[in-house]
Amino acid sequence: MELLSASNKRIKNIQALQRSSKDRRQAGVFIAEGVKMYKEAPAHLLQEVYLTPEVLSEVGEPKVPYYLVSSEVFSKISDTQTPQGVLCVLKRPEMSLGEVIGSGKVNGGRKTERSRESGSGGDISRTPLILLLENLQDPGNLGTILRVGEAAGVTGVVMSKGCVDIFNPKVIRSTMGSIYRMKFTVCDDILEAVKEIKSAGITTYAAHLQGSLGYTEYDYKKPTCFFIGNEGNGLSDEITALADKRLLIPMEGSVESLNAGIAAAVLSYEAHRQRSV
Amino acid sequence: MELLSASNKRIKNIQALQRSSKDRRQAGVFIAEGVKMYKEAPAHLLQEVYLTPEVLSEVGEPKVPYYLVSSEVFSKISDTQTPQGVLCVLKRPEMSLGEVIGSGKVNGGRKTERSRESGSGGDISRTPLILLLENLQDPGNLGTILRVGEAAGVTGVVMSKGCVDIFNPKVIRSTMGSIYRMKFTVCDDILEAVKEIKSAGITTYAAHLQGSLGYTEYDYKKPTCFFIGNEGNGLSDEITALADKRLLIPMEGSVESLNAGIAAAVLSYEAHRQRSV
Repeated sequence: MELLSASNKRIKNIQALQRSSKDRRQAGVFIAEGVKMYKEAPAHLLQEVYLTPEVLSEVGEPKVPYYLVSSEVFSKISDTQTPQGVLCVLKRPEMSLGEVIGSGKVNGGRKTERSRESGSGGDISRTPLILLLENLQDPGNLGTILRVGEAAGVTGVVMSKGCVDIFNPKVIRSTMGSIYRMKFTVCDDILEAVKEIKSAGITTYAAHLQGSLGYTEYDYKKPTCFFIGNEGNGLSDEITALADKRLLIPMEGSVESLNAGIAAAVLSYEAHRQRSV
Repeated sequence: MELLSASNKRIKNIQALQRSSKDRRQAGVFIAEGVKMYKEAPAHLLQEVYLTPEVLSEVGEPKVPYYLVSSEVFSKISDTQTPQGVLCVLKRPEMSLGEVIGSGKVNGGRKTERSRESGSGGDISRTPLILLLENLQDPGNLGTILRVGEAAGVTGVVMSKGCVDIFNPKVIRSTMGSIYRMKFTVCDDILEAVKEIKSAGITTYAAHLQGSLGYTEYDYKKPTCFFIGNEGNGLSDEITALADKRLLIPMEGSVESLNAGIAAAVLSYEAHRQRSV
């Protein structure tokens, strides 16, 4: 099998997809790099694979069309500083808000089998635990939120249109594979989305510096949605006004705010703790 | 007052300090940039300030020697992409392990007045809550840990020599000022440090994938130290073996590990929750 040259039009195309959010959107795809991301890629999403001959002999032949490139050409299509020699083109998953929040199936105490076989001990129900993100800008934060969300049993992530592109290569990388497993959707009108979430019987909480009660004072065993705001400005007044409750993450010392990823982690793990007992 | 030129030896010196961990160590200083970092700088540490005339008229005359530079020269000494026009040279705080962990003063339930006047409602005691970091590599993680640690009431941070330089400009930036307020120390021999922590009556917990009990099962109202490991490899066997207990942060789905900053946040806020009730 021949190696693709740097001037091959497939190579040019991958470079464009790495660079441009618009190109990725128009093609309906995203790109994931690395051996772990390749091995965990869901079969129904995987479209094409680009890899070096060395990595091919390590991971075996992909079941979808694949193309070999030299390490030198690979470094031209890679978004990372230390390329691992394998890159996947995947179809974007498309989900409605209803699918992400599990509306129509919300009944508070329903439990289903956990997808993991060993581990935490607690039996975490599939009662909705939603993170709603407003205009989150940092790719690393968004990726971290998907990863810690999956770990804490978050059942879906809802994003405003103003969030950083979830298919940005840095987001994909920092999810460590959670992008494949977490349900998520981007909403054109986030205020309408909040109304739909509330009418599905999910209690909504705005994480807010003027929150009236500490976050450990509420009951998250019921269907729960946490609103997480933009790194610089927090939640907008419009979305805060729609929340059923405001909660405060207490801060000692002179700290003025927490990183959005940290706030999501603290809230999600508090819900996990309550649901485990 | 004259503006320093790009070839002035003070400017060359700042550039060297920004670049080199060794130069900063030999000079016994660190650098902090930005208006917030300038305003919050403790008077006993601040040595020199470099600023543009515009920022001088905004922040007023520093009480220590200061030097004016043009925006163009400032961009050459700044470590950030959008320089704010003020940069401080500060003396490094030096603390012994005993000062950081509060040994000799450990008595379990002692409470002191909180440094903050309004806020969380809970009265968090000054009972030791220590984070011990082994070979942490990512500057953003370390900065985040100082920030969330201060917010959650962590009383001190102990680092192994193999951690990223805490005076790295990216660490300083991501602490958002907590570098000024958190007690910390870097230990040549981290295993000896663990022994000193234990003999001060502080219970030590290794966050570990093979932990036997979930992290919410332990009592952190007593003097507590959490061990947090390196991003890629976790805690070493040597340090894990010294811990009094192993704890597990449960993970749903297929998540294999949590970011070190996230783990520190979840553990510290669980201690905060227990100490608030």
